[in-house]
Amino acid sequence: MNTVRTKIANRALNAGDRLPSVRRFASTMGVSPSTVVEAYDRLEAEGIIRARRGSGFYVTGADLPPMALTEMGPVRERDVDPFWVSRQSLDADPSALKPGCGWLPADWMPNAALRKGLRALGRADNTLLSDYGSTRGSLALRRLLLGRLAEEGITATADQIMLTGSGTQAIDLICRLLLRPGDTVLVDDPCYFNFQTLLRAHQVRIVGIPFTPTGPDASAFEQALIEQNPRIYITNSALHNPTGASLSPQTAYRVLSAAAAHRLTIVEDDIFADFEPALSPRLAILDGLDRVIRIGSFSKTLSASVRCGYIAARPDWIEGLVDLQIATNFGGPSPIASELVASVLAGGTYRKHMDEIRQRLARARKEAIARLEPLGLVPWTIPRGGFYLWCRLPVGYDSTLIARRCMEENVILAPGNVFSVSQSAASFIRFNVAQLNDERVFSVLKRAMKTAERSRSAGL
Amino acid sequence: MNTVRTKIANRALNAGDRLPSVRRFASTMGVSPSTVVEAYDRLEAEGIIRARRGSGFYVTGADLPPMALTEMGPVRERDVDPFWVSRQSLDADPSALKPGCGWLPADWMPNAALRKGLRALGRADNTLLSDYGSTRGSLALRRLLLGRLAEEGITATADQIMLTGSGTQAIDLICRLLLRPGDTVLVDDPCYFNFQTLLRAHQVRIVGIPFTPTGPDASAFEQALIEQNPRIYITNSALHNPTGASLSPQTAYRVLSAAAAHRLTIVEDDIFADFEPALSPRLAILDGLDRVIRIGSFSKTLSASVRCGYIAARPDWIEGLVDLQIATNFGGPSPIASELVASVLAGGTYRKHMDEIRQRLARARKEAIARLEPLGLVPWTIPRGGFYLWCRLPVGYDSTLIARRCMEENVILAPGNVFSVSQSAASFIRFNVAQLNDERVFSVLKRAMKTAERSRSAGL
Repeated sequence: MNTVRTKIANRALNAGDRLPSVRRFASTMGVSPSTVVEAYDRLEAEGIIRARRGSGFYVTGADLPPMALTEMGPVRERDVDPFWVSRQSLDADPSALKPGCGWLPADWMPNAALRKGLRALGRADNTLLSDYGSTRGSLALRRLLLGRLAEEGITATADQIMLTGSGTQAIDLICRLLLRPGDTVLVDDPCYFNFQTLLRAHQVRIVGIPFTPTGPDASAFEQALIEQNPRIYITNSALHNPTGASLSPQTAYRVLSAAAAHRLTIVEDDIFADFEPALSPRLAILDGLDRVIRIGSFSKTLSASVRCGYIAARPDWIEGLVDLQIATNFGGPSPIASELVASVLAGGTYRKHMDEIRQRLARARKEAIARLEPLGLVPWTIPRGGFYLWCRLPVGYDSTLIARRCMEENVILAPGNVFSVSQSAASFIRFNVAQLNDERVFSVLKRAMKTAERSRSAGL
Repeated sequence: MNTVRTKIANRALNAGDRLPSVRRFASTMGVSPSTVVEAYDRLEAEGIIRARRGSGFYVTGADLPPMALTEMGPVRERDVDPFWVSRQSLDADPSALKPGCGWLPADWMPNAALRKGLRALGRADNTLLSDYGSTRGSLALRRLLLGRLAEEGITATADQIMLTGSGTQAIDLICRLLLRPGDTVLVDDPCYFNFQTLLRAHQVRIVGIPFTPTGPDASAFEQALIEQNPRIYITNSALHNPTGASLSPQTAYRVLSAAAAHRLTIVEDDIFADFEPALSPRLAILDGLDRVIRIGSFSKTLSASVRCGYIAARPDWIEGLVDLQIATNFGGPSPIASELVASVLAGGTYRKHMDEIRQRLARARKEAIARLEPLGLVPWTIPRGGFYLWCRLPVGYDSTLIARRCMEENVILAPGNVFSVSQSAASFIRFNVAQLNDERVFSVLKRAMKTAERSRSAGL
């Protein structure tokens, strides 16, 4: 394979050239014909050569530049903006450490159940394997979700739920249904950075509401409703990203009352629900899916590779959202993916798996706090679940600078300001306690803190 | 299971109620405990009851209305608009016949290869099973696509290609990158109905270019560039949807020259490429991916359940599109789905499968023509591949009326005007020759034609 690749690389073989016959090439190389056949087959599978029936193998001309032969790394020089953490961590090379990323390590996920589900899909009928599926997505999965809503006290009907390609896509569809360019949208400050990138794509005005350990600052929220006339409010009520805080009953009541008074629609992103030790207050539960839209996904607890999210909302909104999903994505999420998710959720091992994950995260959180505090990184609040820890830096330290410094040593952090509409979180860093199991994170972080210390003194 | 369901339905059991113990219920029902255990497990899997460790089974309160226990059918009363065919055929009940739908029957698809690929995924590593994957999507699949482009004579580099959740999503991302509300977009008239729904979601002005058997009317296209100042043109060059026509070299040259003169961007949707007996002219090939963006998907030839599409374009555009995909969908398509597609494409059986499909479609096309012409349905052109046949009705017949009439008998047609921006295709119907294998289609169609004949005479 390498010989052929080299020949192509240095133009000894060009697009359309015929490769030597298996027998001739075998004797030239002094290997068995079967070895050559295997090499040719693999090269064909890579698209580098192509067989023409009865006339041997030809060079396709796909003389891929080196970058194509390995994954492309992230662009290090990118601005530290709301895209930064995603781009750096999604395209990070395998050796990178990612205490800033927003997911669990692969070996924490229910892989055995996923494998079982995939093997079962290998026996599924042709329709499931190759058709588009229904517009609302897998009936089995929607039934499970209706059951979970019912457990929370939300009695929704089947026409109030639809599956999407991801939680993010769910919010995107809702924005398409409810927003027009120039509208105003409220988010928490800080909030999940991708809410900002998504809303910018919709060309709307983003207003941040200061976030407290019990949810958004209710007075600021009420004030914003009066002064800004927002169309929607997007939030995580449980295990808020990035702070890990959860909504208190009193804040929930004040926020929902104010929203009702100003006819504001709320999008409640419930993606971290399964990490909660016990159900905390939800706007969707108080409201019963009238003005609150519930969205969720399985990326954090089940698999991010199996892309699937959902929307629970008023039936008339779901009808419009289904049309929008057809218009912009045709059909719902992959039926294979949805059935896989349904099989894992219904499989019986999922609840036990999540019990273990919650315990494991509780331990990891304790350890993380013990390791970070000596470095001067103090938790803003102690989350009751999930994997985030929102830590404050010593006065005068700039987390963006620290993140850039760590990036140079292939450690990806999530600096505060990528989460802040007002850019007021420079002295915070979001850590993922499940991604701190490598000593190198702390040594690199320590060095970066020293750099920050120096630049701080210089700044003083 | 039915006993429990009934008790819940008529409120004998309510949310939170504890179910009888397995032993007691078994004796009451006179069945074995194992039968009850199995029934409880299934009901739990459906979300109707939920086990609490050590304390038995409880009713979740998800007393689903009947509609939730079976799939919801399409809304028959919907307008016959560009959403009509999708909504009716995606949500059709299994007994429906779908000569109007845009895909092959499930048993025509490479299901054996898909099953093999799924079993192989059952042995994949944890990272592939549960991580998000890279922003551009599976490297293996992008390599295969670069190889195919190279075969066509397009030497693209790895930074010019990205995977998406579907072909439609690919076009949607491009619209997000290049369009703003109020912009003008050119499409063919007739064109794939979903181009219209997608463009409406982007709030742009849609201008149709009359379509001829050799592609868009070049003079009308040139005229539109001068008078309408469009931002982009979206088209199928090969096996055009709905007509099945393919672009001629002369039209390709004139269209691309005019586009270059007016700095117009072209989106070439190549979704039917693998149905071609031989490669026909492509704008992306002439242009070399400068102002032409190539998009494609595997839904028509490999699986629509495995959602995956791609974009090949200028590197700077891909960079912007990757950001937009993160903002609106987070990450690319499912890594599992992409690897599955790659494994089928590279598997060696795919090319043979497509050879057979092409032959099978050629036979089906002949038979369809022979069966439709006696009914007065005459092909506008004879496609060189694919499954579409664009047929003209006798003068004065209204295809919308015929489609509604057939719908009453659960036969879903694709009436001409859902494809026509100018609403000038009322006398056409798009047939899928692979979906005509049931006698009932023709008997129902014949009756509907009679109705149309009567209303025509009435109209005259």
